[in-house]
Order: sequence, then C-alpha cells, then structure tokens
Amino acid sequence: MSTSTSTSVDRIPGLTRVESTAPEDMINECLAMTRPAYPHEQVYGRFCTLEEYVDCPPEQVYDYLRQGHHLEEWTFSVRNFEPAGKPGLWVGDDRLEEGTRIFCRVAANPDAMTVDYHCAWDQSDQLWMVYLMRVVPAMLVLNRPGSVVTWTNCRHPNYDANPYPQSAPRPDRPWIGEFWDLFHAGHLVEMRNLKTILEHRHRNGEPVSHPPLRAVPR
Amino acid sequence: MSTSTSTSVDRIPGLTRVESTAPEDMINECLAMTRPAYPHEQVYGRFCTLEEYVDCPPEQVYDYLRQGHHLEEWTFSVRNFEPAGKPGLWVGDDRLEEGTRIFCRVAANPDAMTVDYHCAWDQSDQLWMVYLMRVVPAMLVLNRPGSVVTWTNCRHPNYDANPYPQSAPRPDRPWIGEFWDLFHAGHLVEMRNLKTILEHRHRNGEPVSHPPLRAVPR
Repeated sequence: MSTSTSTSVDRIPGLTRVESTAPEDMINECLAMTRPAYPHEQVYGRFCTLEEYVDCPPEQVYDYLRQGHHLEEWTFSVRNFEPAGKPGLWVGDDRLEEGTRIFCRVAANPDAMTVDYHCAWDQSDQLWMVYLMRVVPAMLVLNRPGSVVTWTNCRHPNYDANPYPQSAPRPDRPWIGEFWDLFHAGHLVEMRNLKTILEHRHRNGEPVSHPPLRAVPR
Repeated sequence: MSTSTSTSVDRIPGLTRVESTAPEDMINECLAMTRPAYPHEQVYGRFCTLEEYVDCPPEQVYDYLRQGHHLEEWTFSVRNFEPAGKPGLWVGDDRLEEGTRIFCRVAANPDAMTVDYHCAWDQSDQLWMVYLMRVVPAMLVLNRPGSVVTWTNCRHPNYDANPYPQSAPRPDRPWIGEFWDLFHAGHLVEMRNLKTILEHRHRNGEPVSHPPLRAVPR
C-alpha cells in the first residue's frame, strides 16, 4: 500500500476554480463557450446521448426496459429474439441488414434503474455495442409525474473497424459502424417509439409490458 | 387489478418500425434529420448532458464521486461543506454568488456506479437540483482502461422561478436558473477539472480521494 497522500488540489495545474478565477471571469468564459449552434461532430462524434420525458411511472418504464425482448417493439429493426444457449444471452435478427444476427445481454439495476444492453452483430464473444439507459423519476428532476429516460452510446473502436469480418453473413454486408453518424437521428426515432408505446399503454390503463413472442418457456 | 392485455405494438399509431418502413427509407429519414450543426436550445434546452473519458480506474472514479466533499475540489465554486444536521445532508457555500448556501445529499449505487447529487441553493426542504452522474468502465464501451463519466441535468421548473425567494441571502442575489443556458459550458469546465484531478493523481500513483477539509469527525 502506498502511504503517499494525494496532491493538494491547489497544486494541480490546469484547473479552473474560484480561488484563482473570479466568478465574473468564469461567467464570461462560459458565455464565450456558449454558441448559437454546435457542430454535429462536437456533440455526437464520440458519444451519443438522448434524453426524453415519458408520461409513464418510472417503475413501469424500468420494468419494460429491463426485459430485453421489448426491443422487438421499440427499436426500428431488432426482431425475433430467442434464448441463445448461454444464461441471459439472447439472439435475434437486426433487419436493418438482411441476414444479420444480433446478440444481446441485459444488465439492469433496479435501485439505480439503469438498464444496459450489451450487444453485438454476428457474434457473442465480445458484446461491445453497449446501450446505456437509465430511468429517473420525473418528479425528482422535472417536478411532474412520469419518467426521464437517458440513453448513451460510446464510440467503441469496433464501430470504425469490424474485428470479426469472418462472422458477417456476406462479405458486402454494410457494417454497423458506417451508421455511427446517424445514431442520434436513428435513436431519436427509436426513443420516440419507446415514448409512444409506453404512453399509449399507460394512458389506456394497460400493462406496459408484453409477453415475449418467441421465447415463452414451453 | 386490470385484466386487460397490452395493445399489440402493431396497432399503436405513430411508430417507425421495419414492418411498415423499409430500411432504406429509415436511413434516408435519418440522413435528413442529421445536420452539420444543431441549435443550442435543441441540444441543451431541456436537458444538459456531458460525457468524458477519464484515465483512472472506474472503481476509483466512483469512490471519488460518491464522497460529496470532493465537490469542493472539482466544482468551480462549491466549498466548505459540513454536515447539516440531518443524516447524509451537507451544507456548504456556493461562491458563485456571495452569501449563498448550498445543501447537498449524495445518492450513490456501487453496482450501477451511479452518483446523484441532490442539491438546492438556500434551503434543504426540496433538493430539486439533481446532478445525475454515472461511471462506466471504459474497457466495456471504448476498449481502453479508465472510465467514462456521464453527467445529466434536467431543467426542473424551479430553474425558471425560485419558489423560495424568502430564503435568499439578499433580494437582488441572482438566481441559479439564470445560468441554465451556461450550464453546458460551466459543466464542461468542471468536468475538465474532474478529469484533470483524477488523472493527475492516478498518473502519479496517489490515492485519488482526499480527506474532507472541514468535516473530519472530531
């Protein structure tokens, strides 16, 4: 064990803190950093986050998301999930590209209401496409009933080069990473699907969750 | 209990799904939604999220964040935290505005590595300024050691009107909500502080956490 103590924050170079920067200078700096608009690459180049308000109770939204088969409902093209042979692992089709299989494992935490989809096209050895979602009670953060859903993707290097080309269904099948720049738009469409489904069912007093189509235990 | 079943997703209007929209049409729609730049209001009007890579192990980043007194180090102006009399509640100064007290309670989840700061200026009856943070192992999402930190604020209506004006230290003290449009810039400065502190200490083999300055048990 090291017995060293941490460097006092006062001696770490490169910080912007009130001890060395007057509040009015900080505000002026922030005003200069705040622009009428921001380039796509700056906002969505390395990470892609969406946030949405959903008029449905947070416990129900969390319960819907943690059941991975609901991706068949709210995503554009993930369909036909069935158990893939290993505990917790599912496999389905991504109909965005013909013949493409998508593997998925859900990691969820009921207390933090985080739901992470660990996915990959073509193979399940490395589930590197991670969709990080979280449900937050809107009463806490927006003073209204319902939920806030956040959704973040990080630009894993595999988006830029498929490390498993031999697993593709055909050599000319486009790679998911070619769509990275469209993720914000595509995920916005899917987030709106999610909002529409949950609000429709909640408004009509229906259970928001739906049984799996193909993975019912026999 | 209702015995109704959920509306089949096929009968919910307003969805964009592969069953009714061809992949090439979806891609064209996403291309049209994807712009060279996005207005400030569209990106940061209702929510304000930042994401950052930090070259420091996720367990250490989580442990640093969950200890609220470290806000004294990486924020621009929150200082002098001390216990506020109720379990888990702390009070300090926000030196952004003279005489302003800030109350804070941390809600953290070690498994999901979420750290939420529930804060408010002037009073502790309603801790409505909620800073939602999460630490994600960068190996999972970026295939490299270290951490990804996400940070989301939601535009609570109290930002637009202080519901506790009588608690302000003086009638002309500016309200925190007047700074909402500067949150992205301000939080970017603070996120860079966080990254700088954690990376400095980790690079030098020091403990990243630091004892509280004023709240040491006596």
